[in-house]
Amino acid sequence: MAQTPIGTLGDSEFDRDTAVVRREPGVYDAELSAGWTIMNAVNGGYLLAVIGRALADALPHPDPFTVSAHYFTPSTPGPAVVRTEAVRSGRTLSSGQASLLQRDAEGNEVERIRVLASYGDLDALSEDVRTTAKPPAIPPQEHCFGTSDGPAPEIPGSNAITERLDLRLDPATVGWAVGAPSGKGEMRAWFGLADGRDADPLSLLLAVDALPPTSFELGLKGWTPTVELTCHVRSRPAPGPLRVSVVTRNLAGGFLEEDAEVWDSADRLVAQSRQLARAPRQ
Amino acid sequence: MAQTPIGTLGDSEFDRDTAVVRREPGVYDAELSAGWTIMNAVNGGYLLAVIGRALADALPHPDPFTVSAHYFTPSTPGPAVVRTEAVRSGRTLSSGQASLLQRDAEGNEVERIRVLASYGDLDALSEDVRTTAKPPAIPPQEHCFGTSDGPAPEIPGSNAITERLDLRLDPATVGWAVGAPSGKGEMRAWFGLADGRDADPLSLLLAVDALPPTSFELGLKGWTPTVELTCHVRSRPAPGPLRVSVVTRNLAGGFLEEDAEVWDSADRLVAQSRQLARAPRQ
Repeated sequence: MAQTPIGTLGDSEFDRDTAVVRREPGVYDAELSAGWTIMNAVNGGYLLAVIGRALADALPHPDPFTVSAHYFTPSTPGPAVVRTEAVRSGRTLSSGQASLLQRDAEGNEVERIRVLASYGDLDALSEDVRTTAKPPAIPPQEHCFGTSDGPAPEIPGSNAITERLDLRLDPATVGWAVGAPSGKGEMRAWFGLADGRDADPLSLLLAVDALPPTSFELGLKGWTPTVELTCHVRSRPAPGPLRVSVVTRNLAGGFLEEDAEVWDSADRLVAQSRQLARAPRQ
Repeated sequence: MAQTPIGTLGDSEFDRDTAVVRREPGVYDAELSAGWTIMNAVNGGYLLAVIGRALADALPHPDPFTVSAHYFTPSTPGPAVVRTEAVRSGRTLSSGQASLLQRDAEGNEVERIRVLASYGDLDALSEDVRTTAKPPAIPPQEHCFGTSDGPAPEIPGSNAITERLDLRLDPATVGWAVGAPSGKGEMRAWFGLADGRDADPLSLLLAVDALPPTSFELGLKGWTPTVELTCHVRSRPAPGPLRVSVVTRNLAGGFLEEDAEVWDSADRLVAQSRQLARAPRQ
C-alpha cells in the first residue's frame, strides 16, 4: 500500500506528476517533474498542488478551502519529501501544516516551501450564492492566443510547463510577446490541461499561478519569484475550460501583488488567490 | 531584561495591550486585553498585532511584509503565550512561524492561531512605485459617523474595541446601523487609534480587521469568524489618519472573502489583506 500513489484521478500528466507516496504517517515522497518548469524554476502552482495532495491525505477533510504558502528557496526537478502535521480537526474544517523539502548537494534537507491550510468538504457547502463578482471579459477561445499561435513568446529559460497546459491568452494581454507590453498589470486566459483532464480543487492550486506573470505586461522580463501565495477554493469546478484573470495594481518598493480569479464553465467563481512577489530587476 | 516588554512605542493603549515579554528565546508571554473585544470575541487584528510583535523580536528583520494567519479557536481575554520559530533568514527577507496558545479550564494549552510570516525592512525598499490603485472615496472625516454620532449601532455582545479606535464610517456604509443595510458588501472608514497613537506596520495588522464586518451591510448580523487572514504590508504608513476600505464580492456556500486596503495620509497603499470568513447564519 505504501507504494501506491495517493488520490490520483487516472493517467493524466497532472495526476502522475503531482502524485505522492506515503512513506510513513504524515510523510510523503514526491518526484518533482521537469515538465512543469517556467524560466528554469519549478512552477509554484504545481508545487502547491503536490503539497495540497499530501495534505488531502493527511487531513480528515478532502478539499483545500484556504492554503497559505510561503516560498523560501527555488525547487528543482527531482525527489522531494512533503512532511505534514495535522494541527486541528473540527466538524466542517480541519487544519494542517506542510513543508516541502529537497536535499542539497551535500545531502542536507533544505526547506523549499511551508504551508498552512484549512481543508473542508466542498460538496457539503450550501448552494447559497450572493455575488457581485463578474467573470473576466475574455474573447472566445478561437480569438485567443495558444502557444502554437503567432510569434513564440520570448520567455527566457526552459518553459516546459507551456506543453502541459492549454492556455489561450486574451489578445489584450499578449503585447509582451511581441515586444509591446500594454503597461497594464493584467493577464487573462482560458486555462485547461493539455491532456484534457478536467479541473478539480487540486488543479485550481495550479491554475492560480500558471499564467505568464503580469509583470510581463508591465514591461518587465525577468523572473518574478513568489514570496507568499494564498489560495481560497470557493467551489468545486464544473467540467470544461476555466477562465483565469490575474491583476497587479500596486508595484512598489520592488514587490508586487498578483490577484487571481478562476471561473468555471458554469460562471462560478471557483478560486481566488493573492500572492506577494518580488518584481523583476529589469 | 526578560521582564521588559518588547518593542513598545511608549504609553499608548495599543502598545501596552500588544506588549509581549520574552520568557525564553522564541517564547513570549502576552496578556490579551478585554479592551479589544468585538461581539465578545477578542478581535483578530489585535491578536495578529500581538503575534506580529513577538515575531518582530524573534526574526532578524523588523517589519512584517506578509503574514498569513489561520484561526483555529476563539481567543479569550487573559494570559497567552506566543511560541515562535525562526525558519529561514535571507538578506532581504526572513521567515518564521508563530502560534498563539491559551490554557483551557483544565490547564491544557489550546492553540488559537497559527501564523506563517515573512519579515523585511520597509525602510530599505526602493521608492519606486507604479500603481493603478486609487484611494477609497471616503467623505471628509467631519461628514463621517463616529461611535458617538447618530444612533448607537446594534452590535450584539461586548464591543470594547470601539472605545480603543477612532473610526469614522462612510455614511454610504452605515445603513446596517439604522436597520437599512445597503445590500452591498462594502465597509469604509477613517481609522485611527483613540489615544492618537500614529500608525506603524504593527497597527496596520489591526487596521485590516478592525471595521464592522461587511456582512452587516449584506443584512447579516451575527459573528463572522475569520478562518484565514493574510496581510501584506507594502509601505511604512505616514503619520495621520488612515483610510480603510473592505469589500466582499462573493458570499457562497456559507463563506465569504473580505478584501481590505489601507491608505495613509500621503495617499500610499500601505497594506492589503484578504480573509476567508464564515458567513453569519442569520
